[in-house]
Amino acid sequence: MIDLLPYQQSIENALTNIPFSSQPSNLYDPLNYFLKIGGKRMRPILALMACEMFGQKYEQALNAAIAVEIFHNFSLIHDDIMDKAPLRRGQETVHKKWNDNIAILSGDVLLVKAYQEIEKYEAETALALLKIFNRTAVEVCEGQQYDMDFETEQYVSVEQYIEMIKNKTAVLLGCSLEMGSIVAGATIDDYQNIYEFGVNLGIAFQLQDDLLDVYGDQSKFGKQIAGDIIANKKTFLWLTALKDASAEQKLELNSLLKETNPSTKIDGVIAIYNQLQIKEKTQKKMHQYYHAALENINRISVSEAAKKPLLSLGEFLMQRDH
Amino acid sequence: MIDLLPYQQSIENALTNIPFSSQPSNLYDPLNYFLKIGGKRMRPILALMACEMFGQKYEQALNAAIAVEIFHNFSLIHDDIMDKAPLRRGQETVHKKWNDNIAILSGDVLLVKAYQEIEKYEAETALALLKIFNRTAVEVCEGQQYDMDFETEQYVSVEQYIEMIKNKTAVLLGCSLEMGSIVAGATIDDYQNIYEFGVNLGIAFQLQDDLLDVYGDQSKFGKQIAGDIIANKKTFLWLTALKDASAEQKLELNSLLKETNPSTKIDGVIAIYNQLQIKEKTQKKMHQYYHAALENINRISVSEAAKKPLLSLGEFLMQRDH
Repeated sequence: MIDLLPYQQSIENALTNIPFSSQPSNLYDPLNYFLKIGGKRMRPILALMACEMFGQKYEQALNAAIAVEIFHNFSLIHDDIMDKAPLRRGQETVHKKWNDNIAILSGDVLLVKAYQEIEKYEAETALALLKIFNRTAVEVCEGQQYDMDFETEQYVSVEQYIEMIKNKTAVLLGCSLEMGSIVAGATIDDYQNIYEFGVNLGIAFQLQDDLLDVYGDQSKFGKQIAGDIIANKKTFLWLTALKDASAEQKLELNSLLKETNPSTKIDGVIAIYNQLQIKEKTQKKMHQYYHAALENINRISVSEAAKKPLLSLGEFLMQRDH
Repeated sequence: MIDLLPYQQSIENALTNIPFSSQPSNLYDPLNYFLKIGGKRMRPILALMACEMFGQKYEQALNAAIAVEIFHNFSLIHDDIMDKAPLRRGQETVHKKWNDNIAILSGDVLLVKAYQEIEKYEAETALALLKIFNRTAVEVCEGQQYDMDFETEQYVSVEQYIEMIKNKTAVLLGCSLEMGSIVAGATIDDYQNIYEFGVNLGIAFQLQDDLLDVYGDQSKFGKQIAGDIIANKKTFLWLTALKDASAEQKLELNSLLKETNPSTKIDGVIAIYNQLQIKEKTQKKMHQYYHAALENINRISVSEAAKKPLLSLGEFLMQRDH
């Protein structure tokens, strides 16, 4: 596995050096707090690695990397209000620690700060970055809206679900890679391929997330096993099961939605998943997207050696516990 | 008075033609609704007039004009959530007609849509627009935070108040004018002067707003007379009165904050305002800013004839009822 530490350190340094005014403190204290909570910084790392793959120093892509990381944090602050989430990465969310108004407004100014990172590039580069960033930001908002809509919608198709996770999470990975490539001066063909690599990898990663919730090893994965089942979440597994279920299985799945005993509920749903080979079907779909991602990166016009770091990062991401 | 109708019609047309997807409808329906509620479109008109003043067709500045108008509407949608306002321009606010989550997220995507107007210019122009737009957007957020902070703060100085209204409202007028001038290819000196013209005019206009609330002719001004006094709002008038009041007057002003009979409250506050010549002091300050604005426009290197439309718009704005 490649060493992500140098990238991570550059990113943490850059985040620490964002010029937030000290006043008004109700606007900026929440941002200083939230950006320090951390996270894996996967999106900015992708931007830096893409820049390096095209033969440039990764430091050149730092502002672009910070733009996507800041955008990601903006969307988390606002999503946490909408989801009424009390915790994020084990720490109090902004709307919980302060209040909703402060979380709305400091999220807003954080989004503008992301755009201020883009203005640091020369005109042609800045404009190219602005376009992909804008398009992605719109898609992320659309994905979040679909995600909220799906909670109350009776019928959601597997295809709609994949479109939702694509918009809500995968396109930002593609955008990160494309922004790094734009800074490095890659050709349009190349940065379209690296964008698609990110999107396909992102979808595969999200499907894996759904899978691990049910079939993962809790000690390694860290989350509550089958939290999605308890929360009646419409995941890829659930929607595929509903699609493939017999009339009888469908009735049982629907009655399990109302089951209040957690282990009866989990065992019941997993039993049907096993009958319908949902684990295998999810793995198959996940591998389809992963292989599409590998094909995208294969088409890029740099040496195999240059592709190695991103390829092994992709491999690492797809080898979480399952 | 100059005819604003051609500008207004171009702006309404352009707003109608913004490519909002139809789906997800919970994201875009609120925006189509809110943008149709209207308003005077003063900010985009300023952008178009500035472009024309520098000898270019105003249509060239339409995208920049739409960017500021969209930004303004984004900030209104979010401010209305924060202020729990049920109505805006006599119509239901977005958070009231839909809900807070939808108002947060559709506001977010509207802000991104503003940036998508900027990306339509060629690179050098887009970058210059992006910089002034970003700086202004940060200031507007800061102004809104100060405005919220002031509600609960014991002591606010007149200077802090002017700084707040400058950020919350005046800088966006300056930004509109500067963006129109950038599109027209004005020199840096010129667009700095036109920016300052807008900021000074904006502060004068806001001070006039404070004045009209108390001393305006309700039939012409349209708002409830002395609504600011009823709401215990820390306006320029109130803060100047507190600053200039004797110990005894100060005690009375503070006890009037708790007065529950509206006409006793209004009459009591106005009596002290009159004793302290608050009307005249506010007019003096307002004229100072207005004259500073005129000096700014005087310094701009275009003919007097070219300046005429903006000057008469400024004059018109400063001749509301008082």
